[in-house]
Amino acid sequence: MKTPEHAPIRAAIDAHAAALSAKDARGVASCQAPDFVSYSLAPPLVAETDPKELEAWFATWRGPIGWQIDTLDVAASGDVAFAHGLVHMTGTKTDGVKVDLWFRQTLGLRKLGGAWKIAHEHDSVPFYMDGSFRASVDLKP
Amino acid sequence: MKTPEHAPIRAAIDAHAAALSAKDARGVASCQAPDFVSYSLAPPLVAETDPKELEAWFATWRGPIGWQIDTLDVAASGDVAFAHGLVHMTGTKTDGVKVDLWFRQTLGLRKLGGAWKIAHEHDSVPFYMDGSFRASVDLKP
Repeated sequence: MKTPEHAPIRAAIDAHAAALSAKDARGVASCQAPDFVSYSLAPPLVAETDPKELEAWFATWRGPIGWQIDTLDVAASGDVAFAHGLVHMTGTKTDGVKVDLWFRQTLGLRKLGGAWKIAHEHDSVPFYMDGSFRASVDLKP
Repeated sequence: MKTPEHAPIRAAIDAHAAALSAKDARGVASCQAPDFVSYSLAPPLVAETDPKELEAWFATWRGPIGWQIDTLDVAASGDVAFAHGLVHMTGTKTDGVKVDLWFRQTLGLRKLGGAWKIAHEHDSVPFYMDGSFRASVDLKP
């Protein structure tokens, strides 16, 4: 069910993805609500915005980060929305390791002062239930 | 920011948790929207409702499943809401293995025919970025 808010919501999500791809920590922060809460791929369970940590993470990449959003579903009403889809993250780390990871992303958004901001981000892969507790970093959609 | 919808949303989330705890697959399904999409702890990346798979998973537990929701944050507007918090899952599997797992849960909800339903569920733990790709099943809040 599309609403007129879908285009600006998608634009906010694309701006966030573009800032991550460009390793622009300020740009990422400008897409987030003040009370942003992150459930990230990396520990801890719950994190808040920390531009220094984001910059440190960006510094582990050689060149831009591929950050392609696939199959994004959006539900919106009034000043609240949620979106979910898959992200294909690709690139090369400074140690030469190639990254080619598909993960699930769920975003909670709020319209604040007329602009859609990301209030909550949940990124993950599942893990194998074979007793290995190995993260499923090799899955493709 | 509390709205009058917070109580019925919380009640819908609690009913979902109670059905999971009681291993009641029909009860779980009745809490979900028809187009429910799950990003689960286990592969694949994306799953739809499958009561048979849920029943098979329930059958791997001895007795009820502890399913306690901690620190739930809810944002709601009109007929859309999202919620996120930590779930403490405890119990004993049929093979005697004890489970004591904290994971992140994000829910997308929609009000359909006057009742709040879970349209999207994203459950996860992060994984260790030490090259082991081991899921962080040992984290506590």
